[in-house]
Amino acid sequence: MPYHFASRMEKTPKSFIREILKTTERPEVISFAGGLPSPALFAVEELAAAAQDVMAEAGRAALQYSTTEGYLPLREFIAGRYRRRLGLAIDPDEILITNGSQQCLDLIGKVLLDPGDPLLIERPGYLGAIQAFSLYEPAFRSVPLIDDGPDTACLEAMLEEAPAKLFYGVPSSQNPSGITYSAEKRRAVAALLAGTGTIFVEDDAYGELRFDGESLPSLKSYLPDATIITGSFSKIVTPGLRLGWIAAPGEIMEQITVAKQASDLHSNYLAQRIIARYLETNDIDAHIARITDAYQAQRDLMIAMIEEEFPDGVSYTRPDGGMFLWVTLPEGCPTTQLLEEALRQNVAFVPGRAFYVDGGGDTAMRLNFSNADEEKIVVGMRRLGAAVRRFIG
Amino acid sequence: MPYHFASRMEKTPKSFIREILKTTERPEVISFAGGLPSPALFAVEELAAAAQDVMAEAGRAALQYSTTEGYLPLREFIAGRYRRRLGLAIDPDEILITNGSQQCLDLIGKVLLDPGDPLLIERPGYLGAIQAFSLYEPAFRSVPLIDDGPDTACLEAMLEEAPAKLFYGVPSSQNPSGITYSAEKRRAVAALLAGTGTIFVEDDAYGELRFDGESLPSLKSYLPDATIITGSFSKIVTPGLRLGWIAAPGEIMEQITVAKQASDLHSNYLAQRIIARYLETNDIDAHIARITDAYQAQRDLMIAMIEEEFPDGVSYTRPDGGMFLWVTLPEGCPTTQLLEEALRQNVAFVPGRAFYVDGGGDTAMRLNFSNADEEKIVVGMRRLGAAVRRFIG
Repeated sequence: MPYHFASRMEKTPKSFIREILKTTERPEVISFAGGLPSPALFAVEELAAAAQDVMAEAGRAALQYSTTEGYLPLREFIAGRYRRRLGLAIDPDEILITNGSQQCLDLIGKVLLDPGDPLLIERPGYLGAIQAFSLYEPAFRSVPLIDDGPDTACLEAMLEEAPAKLFYGVPSSQNPSGITYSAEKRRAVAALLAGTGTIFVEDDAYGELRFDGESLPSLKSYLPDATIITGSFSKIVTPGLRLGWIAAPGEIMEQITVAKQASDLHSNYLAQRIIARYLETNDIDAHIARITDAYQAQRDLMIAMIEEEFPDGVSYTRPDGGMFLWVTLPEGCPTTQLLEEALRQNVAFVPGRAFYVDGGGDTAMRLNFSNADEEKIVVGMRRLGAAVRRFIG
Repeated sequence: MPYHFASRMEKTPKSFIREILKTTERPEVISFAGGLPSPALFAVEELAAAAQDVMAEAGRAALQYSTTEGYLPLREFIAGRYRRRLGLAIDPDEILITNGSQQCLDLIGKVLLDPGDPLLIERPGYLGAIQAFSLYEPAFRSVPLIDDGPDTACLEAMLEEAPAKLFYGVPSSQNPSGITYSAEKRRAVAALLAGTGTIFVEDDAYGELRFDGESLPSLKSYLPDATIITGSFSKIVTPGLRLGWIAAPGEIMEQITVAKQASDLHSNYLAQRIIARYLETNDIDAHIARITDAYQAQRDLMIAMIEEEFPDGVSYTRPDGGMFLWVTLPEGCPTTQLLEEALRQNVAFVPGRAFYVDGGGDTAMRLNFSNADEEKIVVGMRRLGAAVRRFIG
């Protein structure tokens, strides 16, 4: 029979990365495409011990239905860490546990976006956010990213033209570009948004994965009532447990809670207890330091390989944290076509175009440096360099 | 600052049950309000062993990101069980693992409902479905439930008047009424829907919790291309792991997969592996038999207590499975007001009105018989009987 799908489905970009990831399931492919953390760094034994403790001490409770907001000791941990790390005063009641930070975007869209609402997003912008928000049919408007954050002259002009409902951004080690907003840029963006009614959605998935320099202030320190932060255990503990969180002012949180209950009642409760126990009984700062040391070395190696293997005229970002860097090839080298050649060479990346809501990024690519080990980075970047040289001819 | 929420939030019923559940957190309250399974029947040791096995044998894989569709061996198990239990031919590729079956409703709404689309729901209907679908702003139309399922004369008239996009129903041990559609009723409903373009959403959360009689055919056996089934491990294994599934024809599943990826990428992968291992290494049929034996005894006890403690003029359903029964008090005994008296007596239930999209159920209540043990059922029903008698005066 013919099916009639909701019109919102027509506005959702095809699931480009999922299709790529399928191709890269072939074991011979070295993939810089996904956004996966390094599995070598997972604290498998410690998490297994935490799971065993929870089941032994509170099994029946951990297996039962629980509250929509999430496990209170876990929310208290998150609030305490914001206080210590960023000096932010966030009450545990302003935090709700989600199924990974991707779900934060769905809940924010559900609660705040009517069709046609103007939504600002970085250019290039995070593909997962484009997908999540698309289902709520906003009018996307993109703010160019330059070296140290959004182009504020452009942002100012856009806000003068029309107010925006939301501005979604990734101020620290942005996905896909690897760019971090400077301290000055954070203040300037906040000053432009203040009083406009725009809510800044600060995706802080990579804030803890910082290699160089100290933590920079959250936009929430300038816009306490107009910032929603999304966070994630995926990059610092494990993505397989799908645990993230949303921190929002109380009035927004009331609506988020209603939407969360309607969407799936609550997040996996056993997983929340396991992570809470793991965080109580392990030194998360030491664990994060191990991760950032490894990723920094992998970033350095990937950049060295670009210098060695790629032709002249290639430019790239030098991320001070996170998992991605952004490479721009010379004119006339479209990366969607390059990808076909690269896959023939058994190496994968994400073409830049996927990160633009309004076209662009044709000669750019996103490279992930967290998932592949050093040997794979060397071999994979040689293959990719060869593909680029061949393509440029 | 003033926040401007999406208009869909205004159409969502206040989270009535969540508010009640909060009241019932006082330990002295005996609650027949929630829809919780009996924690005494959780297979805590077996699930702990499964968790340990998975972490030991495949920890790094289980902690990594995974596919949107879900863990293939788990989807194969579900497909195999449909084949054996109901004679249904469902391919594992037509099954996607969700965060509990509540998420199925969100995904179905997202993929299929435009604002104003006519949606049929049973009267009374499942509150969680009303909440989930409300966010997609359909035009609810309610089909009265009578003893053996929907009133087909009424359904026929409604379908003649205007076609419906979806018909959401719970054919086996319905929530809230406890009613099961008879075999004849299933055929008759399917015959009325055939060729109208209406998709039947068969919520089968309780199909395995059947006390009396054999399993009845799924609507999908009559309407293979026009039925979506939602299922859950919450009632037969554990709700705390939030694992359910959706079974839908391939063309619908493609859209569901896009929506699932945008909503939260994928369901908790470690939990999927734990449940799959548990199902491989334990006899789930024997476990389900223990659950149904216990719930049947609890249902019998609750009915005996109604007979003993409630005044004349009270009627009730006699569910042949599931977790709920439905009590109707005499005229002039509104259960929203009765609830206040009941809470003073430290006993809770859900007033009938919560289950009506168009008013009604004023003198009805839903009672859960699965969560409280026998002693609590005796004490709680005495308190509730006293509250009813006092209220009627």
